[in-house]
Amino acid sequence: MDYLDDLFEFLKIDTTSAKGKGEEGAKYLVDYMKSNGIDARLIRDKSRNPYVYGEINVKANKTLLVYNHYDVQPVEPLDKWNSDPFKPKEKDGKIFARGVGDDKGTLMARLQKIISLYKENKLKINIKFIYEGEEEIGSPNIVSFLNNYRDLLKSNYILWEGSGRGPDGSPEIVLGVKGLLYVELRASTEKDLHSMYAPIVQNPVWKLVYFINNLRDQSGKVKIEGFYDDVKWLTEEETRYLKADKEEMEKALGQNVPDNFMKKLVEEPTCNIAGIFGGYTGEGSKTVIPSYAFVKIDFRLVPNQDPEKILTKLKSIADKENIEVVVYGKVKPYRTSISSEISKALIQSAKEVYKIDPVVLPNSPGTGPMESFANILNNNQVADGIGVDNAGSNIHSFNENIFKDDYFKAMDWLQSFLEKIS
Amino acid sequence: MDYLDDLFEFLKIDTTSAKGKGEEGAKYLVDYMKSNGIDARLIRDKSRNPYVYGEINVKANKTLLVYNHYDVQPVEPLDKWNSDPFKPKEKDGKIFARGVGDDKGTLMARLQKIISLYKENKLKINIKFIYEGEEEIGSPNIVSFLNNYRDLLKSNYILWEGSGRGPDGSPEIVLGVKGLLYVELRASTEKDLHSMYAPIVQNPVWKLVYFINNLRDQSGKVKIEGFYDDVKWLTEEETRYLKADKEEMEKALGQNVPDNFMKKLVEEPTCNIAGIFGGYTGEGSKTVIPSYAFVKIDFRLVPNQDPEKILTKLKSIADKENIEVVVYGKVKPYRTSISSEISKALIQSAKEVYKIDPVVLPNSPGTGPMESFANILNNNQVADGIGVDNAGSNIHSFNENIFKDDYFKAMDWLQSFLEKIS
Repeated sequence: MDYLDDLFEFLKIDTTSAKGKGEEGAKYLVDYMKSNGIDARLIRDKSRNPYVYGEINVKANKTLLVYNHYDVQPVEPLDKWNSDPFKPKEKDGKIFARGVGDDKGTLMARLQKIISLYKENKLKINIKFIYEGEEEIGSPNIVSFLNNYRDLLKSNYILWEGSGRGPDGSPEIVLGVKGLLYVELRASTEKDLHSMYAPIVQNPVWKLVYFINNLRDQSGKVKIEGFYDDVKWLTEEETRYLKADKEEMEKALGQNVPDNFMKKLVEEPTCNIAGIFGGYTGEGSKTVIPSYAFVKIDFRLVPNQDPEKILTKLKSIADKENIEVVVYGKVKPYRTSISSEISKALIQSAKEVYKIDPVVLPNSPGTGPMESFANILNNNQVADGIGVDNAGSNIHSFNENIFKDDYFKAMDWLQSFLEKIS
Repeated sequence: MDYLDDLFEFLKIDTTSAKGKGEEGAKYLVDYMKSNGIDARLIRDKSRNPYVYGEINVKANKTLLVYNHYDVQPVEPLDKWNSDPFKPKEKDGKIFARGVGDDKGTLMARLQKIISLYKENKLKINIKFIYEGEEEIGSPNIVSFLNNYRDLLKSNYILWEGSGRGPDGSPEIVLGVKGLLYVELRASTEKDLHSMYAPIVQNPVWKLVYFINNLRDQSGKVKIEGFYDDVKWLTEEETRYLKADKEEMEKALGQNVPDNFMKKLVEEPTCNIAGIFGGYTGEGSKTVIPSYAFVKIDFRLVPNQDPEKILTKLKSIADKENIEVVVYGKVKPYRTSISSEISKALIQSAKEVYKIDPVVLPNSPGTGPMESFANILNNNQVADGIGVDNAGSNIHSFNENIFKDDYFKAMDWLQSFLEKIS
């Protein structure tokens, strides 16, 4: 087993779930696990991309469920990549490829380390692997899957998809996720018109602009009535572990950030325009009143907001304006306890391996189906850590990358964690 | 000379000036005129697409300058066309093709009629033809051209590009044009970011949305300070001829219009979103904070607004927000007198040929470089009429079309007009 060669083979496979791809990546994983002595198979359930399930039973008392996803975000805009996103490239101590940070790199680092420990007879806890292929499109089928495979996935602890090093370089531990409501708002008329008719007809782009202008103010505050009703603001204890280097964060993001950026990242729900389109967008000018426009919006939600409740509020105001709401994703937020066994083991092992205090986030600023795992599998020890990425990894963007050293450091962290949790 | 066969050959030539096309169409016209005994040639001046100039000197005392344009608007969205826009198709008494309404149909109907009269020795006024190839991109080089060819284009009257039948079926006469200011507003950051960073970074799409929301209110009123300062509102006499059938107009546009729609169309300047783009606009979802967004806006201006003055106002507020303003077109508005010789001849001939009163618009709701012709050529008898289109012609849109009968009716109108003006 050559760690990086095998990783690169995996990265070469396009698993963009938003474009219906993934099957090939799933099969690669099953073959990889089987060839290394792990009992593994595809589970199709209702999902378009199959789940990959694997199991190592060392007859220990406890079982750890390791969750990762093998699907990736679309690579557009492709012209902004310095190298082919599906041809992994090593440069200046980094590895560039779509998914290397989110989440194929972490998936492979963990899998390879566990295989090594298993082969060396050093594994003292049973392992179950579950890999999803629809995380990047909002895990539309995870609830059904978890309900149908509740017994198979039974475990004492659940290790989440992976968090590497934060903006200040410290290992990051995350005890929850934000939720998500992803919608597309659409407005239309019968046909495109010459713009000379502008004084007397409706323009769907203007209609959408006015509508979304009322969704959010310029400070970022969401203006939908009742949007913040269920928000569980952070306690003083939960904010204590939110250290981060502002300068590093700004360098990584290429923008200035406010002083209290870590608290905002964890605590605040958002309304983000991910895409907007209408009318003539080619070169030069065309004087037209477009007949169709849409805007893609993702709301990141925090405990205890409910995407279903937010959607109902949004629909009720959109209906009044005759604006169509298409839903692409709904995920609930989740937070686990900072004093759980899994949290303690993650914190202690991080300290030992990285020789610095970890950052502990009560919840990630990002989203994953953690809440479904916790509730449906009746498991309240779900936590994240042991990942390969960093704040400059450009996940979901172009030139996604990780440091090669971080790949192997995550393997060490995993080994130490497994010793403590076993 | 077979009128429709020759028209169809011309319509087949893609002359989309926004995409740099036109040369082939210009050459077709020169060849066509020459083969029919008209002295004709290309004039290149500074323009990308050449001007086509033709002349028939019958040694009369007066000269009429006939202006048309051979370029067309882009055909996108192509999938909405029922037939190939560059393969003219006859169906149900109509002719479908890009440009058949604006402006290739009128150009050919006039040219063919004048050739006929000339061959039959019935032409009693000298004719000069000038065909432009950049009207649909805002006539960026017309001022230079007119200044350089002032003497060549000397004439007593100027007949504009063509107005056919209005929404109520009456022949339409137009004594001016609206002006235009076409801009693209752009906002950007360093790179695309995962949308989990939304609580702490700027989103260029939101930035543009907030900015354009402050340009126009929901009633259509432009909110730029001083925008209406120079507007010359219509006199009572000028509004007297603004009859139109509301039901027909609504049918043609596929939308409801206000009761005073004709007055609004003529009198009101506008701020129209012709296109907007930012972020992920593919299928499904992508949770990203886009690094780039733009919006294309056309302002239709009325006498005596000045596009340069409006641009200065717009730039001063855009600069404050660090929003880039790219200018694609600037055209001044123009109005000629309703009691001029050319106006009277057009009104009288329309009454005779169509057996109903024409509609007379003090200015078109649309734009053309009429103002430059009037001022630079020192000619205050510039008027429009004798066109082949109607309110359902879908000009600038998909499935552009005219009634075949209107093509020949316009020829009759031209003949009667020439008799009166000669």
